[in-house]
Amino acid sequence: MAERADRKTVSLRAAAAGVPVLIPVAISARHVHLTESVIETLFSDKYRLHTHADLVQPGQYAAEECVTLVGPHGRIPHVRIVGPPRAVNQVEISRTDALTLGINAPVRESGDLAGTPGIVLQGPRGSVTLESGVICALRHVHMCPEEAARLGFKDQDRIQVAAQSADRQTLFQNVVVRVSPTYRLEMHLDTDEGNAAGLRSGDPVVLQ
Amino acid sequence: MAERADRKTVSLRAAAAGVPVLIPVAISARHVHLTESVIETLFSDKYRLHTHADLVQPGQYAAEECVTLVGPHGRIPHVRIVGPPRAVNQVEISRTDALTLGINAPVRESGDLAGTPGIVLQGPRGSVTLESGVICALRHVHMCPEEAARLGFKDQDRIQVAAQSADRQTLFQNVVVRVSPTYRLEMHLDTDEGNAAGLRSGDPVVLQ
Repeated sequence: MAERADRKTVSLRAAAAGVPVLIPVAISARHVHLTESVIETLFSDKYRLHTHADLVQPGQYAAEECVTLVGPHGRIPHVRIVGPPRAVNQVEISRTDALTLGINAPVRESGDLAGTPGIVLQGPRGSVTLESGVICALRHVHMCPEEAARLGFKDQDRIQVAAQSADRQTLFQNVVVRVSPTYRLEMHLDTDEGNAAGLRSGDPVVLQ
Repeated sequence: MAERADRKTVSLRAAAAGVPVLIPVAISARHVHLTESVIETLFSDKYRLHTHADLVQPGQYAAEECVTLVGPHGRIPHVRIVGPPRAVNQVEISRTDALTLGINAPVRESGDLAGTPGIVLQGPRGSVTLESGVICALRHVHMCPEEAARLGFKDQDRIQVAAQSADRQTLFQNVVVRVSPTYRLEMHLDTDEGNAAGLRSGDPVVLQ
C-alpha cells in the first residue's frame, strides 16, 4: 500500500506543474550490448565498432555492425550492436522475437541478468554462446536529476504514461523511472509495446 | 463530450455489479479469412478446409490449411486460414508483421476494409493477389446480448480493460464492444498487444 501512495504523490506533484508533461518515445528494436572480448571473437582481434547513428542517450550509438541471433526454434539476422562495448553481454529482444527464437526471455531491467537464458550469436568471424543475458527490457523513462527534481521523481519510482493514439489508446502503468546525470528525458519501449500503442520513435507520450 | 459521459456511465453500471468483471483474452496470431474462390485458386477446385481447432467464437475454426503472405519487403509462411470461408477476403496481421512484409496495414475493425492495402497469398496450387483487405485488427470485446445487457453495454460502446501483469501492467482504452447472439465473452488482441501487456490466451483481463 505504501507503494501505491507513493505513486499517487509523484503523479500529483507532476500535475501541479499545470501543463501536460510530454515525454518523447524511443522504440527499441532488438539489439545487443557486447563486451570487447565477444566483439573480437565475432569480428576480429582488436576490432573496434563503427558508429552508424548516435542515440539520444549521450555516448550511446547504434553500430554499423550486426550479428545473427540463433535460438532453438529460429534465427534472427541483422541485429544491431549498440555501443560502446560493455562489461557484460546483454541481448534485448521483444516477446515476438522470443517466440521466433524459442527463448523464454523474462521482462527485466537492463543489467538485471541473474537467471536469464542464454543464446548463440553469429558474426562474420565466428560464433559465441552466451550462457545468460537475454531479456525483454522493462519499460522505463530516462531522465537527468534536474528533470527528476522538477517532476518530483526519484530513481526507481513507478509512474503511469499515456499513449494517445486514436485507435490504440493505451495507459502504460508501473513504468520505472531511471535517473542519472548521463540521461536525457525519453521513454523506452520495445517494438511490441510501441506497436500495441500505435507509437513511433519521437512521438510524445503524456505523464499521468 | 457526450462520448466521454457515455463511457463513464457504462463503467459505472458495470462496477455496480460489485465484483470485478473478468474477461478471458484471446491473442490472435496473424491469420486470413478467405472466400471459397480464393481457397480454390490456392489449393484446388472444390477444395474444402479441414478443422485444426475450434475457436471460442461459435462456428469459427482454425483450419489445417496455411498460406504464405508475400509483401514488397518480406514473406511470412505458415499463416493459418480461419474458417468457414467468408464473402470477403481479410488478412489480419500485427504491426510487427506489417513491418516485416512492408505493408502499411491500418488499424481497422473486422470488415471495414475500404482503402486498405493488398497482398499476395501463396498456396500449394498457386498465388492470388488481393487488391485490398490487409488490416491490424482493432482491439475489441465480443459478447452476446444477454452479457451486454447485464453489463450495461451496447454494440460499438467504447470501454477500458486492464491487464494486470506484474511487470507489464497496461490499461487498454477505447476498446470496442461488439455484440451479437453468436458471440461469447472474449477480448481479442493481436500478438503485439498481448506481448506488450504480458498476456497469453486464456488470461483474464478486468473491465474498468
